[in-house]
Amino acid sequence: MKVPPDLISFLKKNDNFFIATHISPEPDALGSSLALSMALESLGKKTIVYDRDTVPEFYRFLPGYEKFIYSTAQAQTSACNLILLDCNTPDRAGIDGLVFRSSTVIDHHETEKGFGDLRWIVPDAAATGMLIFSLIKELGTAITKDIAVNLYAAIAIDTGTFRYTNTTADVLRVAAELINAGAVPASISDSLYNIWSEGRFTLLIASLNTLDIRDGVAFTHVTQAMYQKTRTGPEDTENFANLPRTMKHIKVSAFFRQIGKNYWKASLRSKGALNVAEIAVSFGGGGHRNAAGYTFKGNFEAAKEGLLKALRKSS
Amino acid sequence: MKVPPDLISFLKKNDNFFIATHISPEPDALGSSLALSMALESLGKKTIVYDRDTVPEFYRFLPGYEKFIYSTAQAQTSACNLILLDCNTPDRAGIDGLVFRSSTVIDHHETEKGFGDLRWIVPDAAATGMLIFSLIKELGTAITKDIAVNLYAAIAIDTGTFRYTNTTADVLRVAAELINAGAVPASISDSLYNIWSEGRFTLLIASLNTLDIRDGVAFTHVTQAMYQKTRTGPEDTENFANLPRTMKHIKVSAFFRQIGKNYWKASLRSKGALNVAEIAVSFGGGGHRNAAGYTFKGNFEAAKEGLLKALRKSS
Repeated sequence: MKVPPDLISFLKKNDNFFIATHISPEPDALGSSLALSMALESLGKKTIVYDRDTVPEFYRFLPGYEKFIYSTAQAQTSACNLILLDCNTPDRAGIDGLVFRSSTVIDHHETEKGFGDLRWIVPDAAATGMLIFSLIKELGTAITKDIAVNLYAAIAIDTGTFRYTNTTADVLRVAAELINAGAVPASISDSLYNIWSEGRFTLLIASLNTLDIRDGVAFTHVTQAMYQKTRTGPEDTENFANLPRTMKHIKVSAFFRQIGKNYWKASLRSKGALNVAEIAVSFGGGGHRNAAGYTFKGNFEAAKEGLLKALRKSS
Repeated sequence: MKVPPDLISFLKKNDNFFIATHISPEPDALGSSLALSMALESLGKKTIVYDRDTVPEFYRFLPGYEKFIYSTAQAQTSACNLILLDCNTPDRAGIDGLVFRSSTVIDHHETEKGFGDLRWIVPDAAATGMLIFSLIKELGTAITKDIAVNLYAAIAIDTGTFRYTNTTADVLRVAAELINAGAVPASISDSLYNIWSEGRFTLLIASLNTLDIRDGVAFTHVTQAMYQKTRTGPEDTENFANLPRTMKHIKVSAFFRQIGKNYWKASLRSKGALNVAEIAVSFGGGGHRNAAGYTFKGNFEAAKEGLLKALRKSS
């Protein structure tokens, strides 16, 4: 990955950086921010690492996560050079309105907004972590074990641990280099995927028991009674929509979780060309082509029938 | 991976090979056999590729799977040099009693019995596919796209697509090289993981409903009645042992499938340092540190208690 020379010289010339990433952070946002902070500090620079939201409990295996601050009240941002990571507008990081000395964007998401004095946006990059890896190599500082773990987790999460279409030979070569630098793949995978509570697993089984397949759509759901029985909550249903996609003939997996009486949150996962974002928008929601969601008021049977009707209309 | 020079010269000198792999084949067995056959045939050699069991429907994305024969009736084995892959005793391949011109073993399983005139057994290798990759490089023949797909699938399945403890920098470097040779990671992952029949998915749910956690061991099982109800078979249970490992406090996932009345096949999956191969060996089975299996005669409760007792003894 070719790093813009003006970005390198900018980082070398300046001393104070405010690294910010998006709200609801996941390991690409967190790991990229921490790795960049560590590399810059090894050059004697001062860095602040910021997220509006706290680092979720289950991502606190990332070395240095305690560097994150969650308030800008004490930060003299006007003396700092902003580096926005894994997003490209201040509002995605919850820092709109703050004044910085300069602003730099490093991201792999598509953009139309044009924010930033310096911009390095590579939509083809599998993860922002891939860009930070190249950047650190170009800066000439060491890939320490802590940096390696952060970047490996960043790349692993955004490629589905090397299962998604963005998994390239380059991704695996970088991952191999990070292992040599001290990242332990199985330990990071366990930290990312094998930390479910027994209640969460029991809730998954309960949701799978509701499986109902109609017209190539796999419906599953959880009710508030199921949360109570398993001592779980809505955050435990993360990724529940994915498993039914395992079935070859399923075009959409539709997972519904109950928000209230006759009130549901739908998570849709599709395969290939089927665009569920359009469906979600038609219900007032949104998302990406293969992963989208919306809320629905009505009984569960109406929710199912409404989705099937919308899918028939769109095809 | 250093390939034994006598193995290379043996393969170069001889012309007729009978490549056999273990019963109930999975992609490491299948892909390694097909890749080796293709490489040897590119050198003008004749090969037969044998498995006692047919290639399961869902592994028929492996290029060349139709090369497999399932009967030795027509093969003049006494004129052939046996190459036993991904196992190390003739009984594991269902070929005991057959006479060959010579016998070679290439395997990465720890439990070896001393069979074979030539033996290359590397327990540290993540997959037999890793050995075959080195072997083909050493033979100097091309890694074609078909070979690349077979070896990528072989390595992917045995490392949990790069999530298990056997995932090393070398594994990822080889995988990167296979991508450059034409393997498409996302397509292979979809073929490995997202092609389940509805019956298989229903069987998984049925097995999850049997979940019983004792002393940090997650027991699940399927009975022959469940196969009948879901129109599935033993091959559909591949990987069923993995899902309960998702739970943080589980040290072993133990999946049992019924072979007959009071007759069970156990698949064990462990995390980290817990060596289930040793446990499996104590029951007359075998495998790897984090993935092993054995058969057990007795009722299911005895099977569970027997395993718990063996685990208590080993710890």
